[in-house]
Parts: sequence; C-alpha cells; structure tokens
Amino acid sequence: MTAYTATVTVRLKEGVLDPEAETTKKALQRLGFELESLRSADRFELDVDAESTDAAAQRADEMAERLLANPTIHDYDVEVEPRE
Amino acid sequence: MTAYTATVTVRLKEGVLDPEAETTKKALQRLGFELESLRSADRFELDVDAESTDAAAQRADEMAERLLANPTIHDYDVEVEPRE
Repeated sequence: MTAYTATVTVRLKEGVLDPEAETTKKALQRLGFELESLRSADRFELDVDAESTDAAAQRADEMAERLLANPTIHDYDVEVEPRE
Repeated sequence: MTAYTATVTVRLKEGVLDPEAETTKKALQRLGFELESLRSADRFELDVDAESTDAAAQRADEMAERLLANPTIHDYDVEVEPRE
C-alpha cells in the first residue's frame, strides 16, 4: 500500500448560476479591482492508502460520485499524487 | 494587455478546526470508503487582463489579501496562466 493524496475539484457546470461568485466579483470591483469574471470551486484533498495511483484515483472518483459532487449541477476532476 | 486566469486557493491554516471537513470525512467512511484524512479548500478562478503574468499575480494576491482570504485563519496560494 502506498500513501496518496487525491485532489477532487468540484465546480458548477456551465450555465448554472452562482450568486455567491457574482457577489464576490462585485465586491472586488467595488474595492477597485479590475476583473472580467470569477468562478468558485470546492477543493477536497483526500489522503488515501491504495495499491496504485489508478486505484487511488478510482476511489476518489467514487467518493466524488457518491458524496462530494452533485452530478446534476457539478463537474469534477481528480488528480492523484504520492504523499510523503 | 494579455488575458490571464489567476487561480487563488484558500485553505485553513494548520491547527484551525474544520468541522465541515470532519463531517464530510465521517460521511465518506460511513459509506464504506477508506481514507486517512480530508481537507477542504476554496478555489477562485479570476479572469483578469494585465500587462504581464507578474502583474496578474500581484493583483490576484491583493484580492486574496483584501477579500478572498482571512489572514487570521487562512493561507492562500496564487497560480497564473494565460487564458485563450
């Protein structure tokens, strides 16, 4: 078994409204910052022990499907790195 | 002016309690997943137009300092990439 950290990034699908991001963008502009747009996402770093990178990625993928992301409104991606 | 996307990742400092992450971890374990620990972070993708990568990074840094992160409890990092 090797120790891995799987990073799952969960973002809203294109076209899904994100009023919190819109509010944050307007607040930044009110502070004088120039920016075109702002998107927010949730990032989960999961420490898992697994036989291989593929096994760790598969487990993280299942966790995203079952709990971390809502497939109706979210896209997600998974990255796996060995952990010291 | 070039178009950049600056990604600001905001995470809780070591030692700051994160009950939401703890709850998510326990929910995953209850579903039968094995994992050692789970950390959560917020990720902001900012589309900005700037003279250079450095200028875009500096502006994203200021936005993190002023609004996106709370320096008492958060660490953050900034990555900048050109945007098509």
